[in-house]
Amino acid sequence: MTSDRIRHAGLAAKVTDAASAAALIRPGDTLGMSGFTGSGYPKAVPVALAERIEAEHAAGHPFRVKVWTGASTGPELDGAMAKADGIEFRMPYNSDPIARQKINAGEMEYFDLHLSHVAPMAWEGFLGHMDVAVVEVSGITPEGDLIPSSSVGNNKTWLELADKVILEVNRWQSPALDGMHDIYYGTALPPNRVPIPLVKPDDRIGQPHFRIDPAKVVAVVETDAPDRNAPFSPPDDTALAIASNILDFLTWEAKRAGLPPSLLPLQSGVGNVPNAVMAGLIETPFEGMTAFTEVIQDGMLDMIEAGTLRMASATAFSLSPEKAQYFNENAQRFRDRLLLRPQDISNNPELVRRLGCIAMNGLIEADIYGNVNSTHVMGSRIQNGIGGSGDFARNGYVSIFMTPSTAKGGAISAIVPQVSHVDHISQDVQVIVTEQGLADLRGLSPKQRARLIVEKCAHPAYRPMLEEYMARAAKGSYGQHAPMLPGEALSWHQRFMETGSMQA
Amino acid sequence: MTSDRIRHAGLAAKVTDAASAAALIRPGDTLGMSGFTGSGYPKAVPVALAERIEAEHAAGHPFRVKVWTGASTGPELDGAMAKADGIEFRMPYNSDPIARQKINAGEMEYFDLHLSHVAPMAWEGFLGHMDVAVVEVSGITPEGDLIPSSSVGNNKTWLELADKVILEVNRWQSPALDGMHDIYYGTALPPNRVPIPLVKPDDRIGQPHFRIDPAKVVAVVETDAPDRNAPFSPPDDTALAIASNILDFLTWEAKRAGLPPSLLPLQSGVGNVPNAVMAGLIETPFEGMTAFTEVIQDGMLDMIEAGTLRMASATAFSLSPEKAQYFNENAQRFRDRLLLRPQDISNNPELVRRLGCIAMNGLIEADIYGNVNSTHVMGSRIQNGIGGSGDFARNGYVSIFMTPSTAKGGAISAIVPQVSHVDHISQDVQVIVTEQGLADLRGLSPKQRARLIVEKCAHPAYRPMLEEYMARAAKGSYGQHAPMLPGEALSWHQRFMETGSMQA
Ligand SMILES: CC(C)(COP(=O)(O)OP(=O)(O)OC[C@H]1O[C@@H](n2cnc3c(N)ncnc32)[C@H](O)[C@@H]1OP(=O)(O)O)[C@@H](O)C(=O)NCCC(=O)NCCS
Ligand SMILES: CC(C)(COP(=O)(O)OP(=O)(O)OC[C@H]1O[C@@H](n2cnc3c(N)ncnc32)[C@H](O)[C@@H]1OP(=O)(O)O)[C@@H](O)C(=O)NCCC(=O)NCCS
Repeated sequence: MTSDRIRHAGLAAKVTDAASAAALIRPGDTLGMSGFTGSGYPKAVPVALAERIEAEHAAGHPFRVKVWTGASTGPELDGAMAKADGIEFRMPYNSDPIARQKINAGEMEYFDLHLSHVAPMAWEGFLGHMDVAVVEVSGITPEGDLIPSSSVGNNKTWLELADKVILEVNRWQSPALDGMHDIYYGTALPPNRVPIPLVKPDDRIGQPHFRIDPAKVVAVVETDAPDRNAPFSPPDDTALAIASNILDFLTWEAKRAGLPPSLLPLQSGVGNVPNAVMAGLIETPFEGMTAFTEVIQDGMLDMIEAGTLRMASATAFSLSPEKAQYFNENAQRFRDRLLLRPQDISNNPELVRRLGCIAMNGLIEADIYGNVNSTHVMGSRIQNGIGGSGDFARNGYVSIFMTPSTAKGGAISAIVPQVSHVDHISQDVQVIVTEQGLADLRGLSPKQRARLIVEKCAHPAYRPMLEEYMARAAKGSYGQHAPMLPGEALSWHQRFMETGSMQA
Repeated sequence: MTSDRIRHAGLAAKVTDAASAAALIRPGDTLGMSGFTGSGYPKAVPVALAERIEAEHAAGHPFRVKVWTGASTGPELDGAMAKADGIEFRMPYNSDPIARQKINAGEMEYFDLHLSHVAPMAWEGFLGHMDVAVVEVSGITPEGDLIPSSSVGNNKTWLELADKVILEVNRWQSPALDGMHDIYYGTALPPNRVPIPLVKPDDRIGQPHFRIDPAKVVAVVETDAPDRNAPFSPPDDTALAIASNILDFLTWEAKRAGLPPSLLPLQSGVGNVPNAVMAGLIETPFEGMTAFTEVIQDGMLDMIEAGTLRMASATAFSLSPEKAQYFNENAQRFRDRLLLRPQDISNNPELVRRLGCIAMNGLIEADIYGNVNSTHVMGSRIQNGIGGSGDFARNGYVSIFMTPSTAKGGAISAIVPQVSHVDHISQDVQVIVTEQGLADLRGLSPKQRARLIVEKCAHPAYRPMLEEYMARAAKGSYGQHAPMLPGEALSWHQRFMETGSMQA
């Protein structure tokens, strides 16, 4: 008996409930889960698994698993399973607050890597063996192929690597998703890799569906549950000022470099501020723009409807609940405008460099030399993870990082003498923007960068402190290439930890 | 009247002496110089220019220029011109001791970037305009094409971008170099970039000679002067122990991952230790290996003669004076074994990732989490520059970093609580090796990495200090994902600056 979503008889025969499917997972298993920035993650099996784990723990039996995903997921996966103390090891990117709290309490091991590297590294085998893949799809074709859901992430790889596969077929996902995916089956490990034949963001190089060996599918679970992404914070004055600084820069740069009216493909990172910038870009002088990016945010749908964005290529949706609803109701309208690809393609350095993406990402803190920390608050507490920011920042045409100049009501300066952790080295950070201004650092030496960042980006409340540090470093430093004082460089973080403020 | 090296009449007519050629350079000019790791740099015009600058300075006239190169050059270029205080701005990589001293005294601005990025960034135009290219070649064909010399570097780009070109034709370079180069003319800026059609290290995708518009050539200078690279330090016990640890790892990894008998293309970095490792690799079980790397070192020629290395692709030779002499006398023997390419091809992320290079680079210091500093001693004093290490470390099949566990006779630990500067983030550092042992960090969380690095790599004299730091951080850290103490993390560097030793 097949349903309209499960049109392959053999797989329809494997329909079961979430608890029965979760019962197929063993303690210690490595699970490959679908999901990328709150989209397309399994919503029933992880909850059932968390319940089972809690019951086992209550009975005194240890039960933890290793979880690999595309990127962040939703409360039903990372939240429920972390709450149950069910995750021993998690990779690659997390933004769930409960999982974050466990990681920062030292109760969960977390391995954060470049999102384009996850699939190849899994294939290389040293991360270990994958036992079970749990993958949300939006449907199953009569031939037994899988229609992907609202994210692609690492699903192709998980479906191929896992011993067993559990599918969740989510009726909530729009049927119009069918045809919006481009699954590239041309990857190989060295020495057999070949050029990826993509030269424009809208090139199709693969097929719309995942292949699957039906014999590996051990359970199919039907769901009807929305993606639960973070709500969209409407841009505040700070975000609008940052967006306006970026727009001025792009307009100037397009003229200087003779870029086409469609500019170059946009990449926009995750977080409130990048989201707001996309919303601001709707007022641009550019026409027929494209995005070659990781996630499709609210602002991109608006830009498509406004006619400024011609199309977007990504690996996942990252829409607020309202916008996800809107998309589901109007999906047909976006059919020829959106393409979702595996994350080792959406974030591939070969492609990001070839296309010349304009990379725009958020940051936690930057230092006077332009090194960026995107991940570790006070050097030790993980916020989310590096995600794809490194894939884009190192390879794009220009790499822009943005942040409000202060955090926590002014108690923290986003511009510090030395970042407490480095995700993006100064070579990969060409422009830094705050609501105060924009520093174009291209081609500048460390001391030239420092002067510009402090002048253009720092908050006035911290600018004199930074200038005094630079003056002291110009005297006491071991070398004068990039003057720094090891005894003082991280003192602002120490002061914050002791007093709750970086202000002296 | 043409000579056997200058077989184009129009260009032969432009032969002049170095002083006359140097007279064509104006104060404030931006010069694009050939040269990469002590090979193929101009040897007469920079010396004449330095003399002219000294004379102008003596007469009270300011005279400084901006110098762009491939990478490091030789004493006749960076040495002579830095000594004359003639360099206002220098990029991208320097290892000359006089230039280094000027940079670290704050007397010369230095901009250090990924070597694969230099040519594209120059094309993008924001680095400024190039006035004069000064390029060494080994000969000029009857058609007026240029036969490259012992390095390719950015020469293709400098010849195209500069308003005026000065050529040095160096008779010392072997005539057998002709045919060993592969100059790819398929690059373009986005949105017109296409896949680079190279799938094996020995693929030829270009032509053997540079094109040049003869009208741009303002002077041709004949020289007969050797490349002056650093002498080769024979491997000491420490280097041999590091090489042996790496060989064990590669043998184990090849078996684990089922790599071919020829392994994957090798990349070997600059410095004494990587040099020694290449010398050690001659005793390998692998057969028919290849190198896709930046520079061809002494050890690679030995491996070719021993039959273990089938061929090497690079952008430059980096041979000791003795080996350079040997190569010149026996160049025919290496003709089909070596290929030199532009550095935006030899180091291209697209190619490094496609081929799956085994990246092996030196470091200054690493921290317990596996972040690597390759450039800044005590966080502020530049040693050389990041060079191509980031191109290879982020994109290779596996990224190995190596160092003796201590420096300066034990007064410095190469493994520290926190590096004073970051060039390679932990995600790009998969293996760290010292003479003490090897840490395979792939797939490990920060705390797992820290335990392994301290156990396997740190010197016994520093291991207890690192363990005590980790124990304190496990209590006092803001977060427990990657425990760290901002007030203490850089205290080892501070102590060294105050007492001359990191030992408490
Ligand atoms: C860096 C990043 C966290 C910024 O996100 P954002 O939502 O724009 O930033 P916000 O200003 O809202 O800050 C997020 C939190 O960090 C805190 N924060 C920001 N800067 C801080 C700083 N310098 N010190 C301490 N905390 C800071 C904020 O106060 C906020 O905390 P809260 O949730 O307790 O209020 C986010 O962009 C990210 O995770 N980046 C890494 C991954 C990435 O770039 N992916 C894109 C690749 S395609
Ligand atoms: C990192 C690098 C400098 C190591 O070079 P090396 O020759 O193998 O290393 P050595 O051990 O001889 O060290 C070089 C100098 O740094 C000093 N040094 C090394 N480690 C140090 C440390 N932790 N603290 C202070 N000084 C240190 C050494 O004492 C030596 O100084 P000296 O010249 O005064 O004797 C070199 O590999 C490099 O420049 N790397 C960056 C570029 C790169 O990787 N390019 C390859 C891309 S293809």
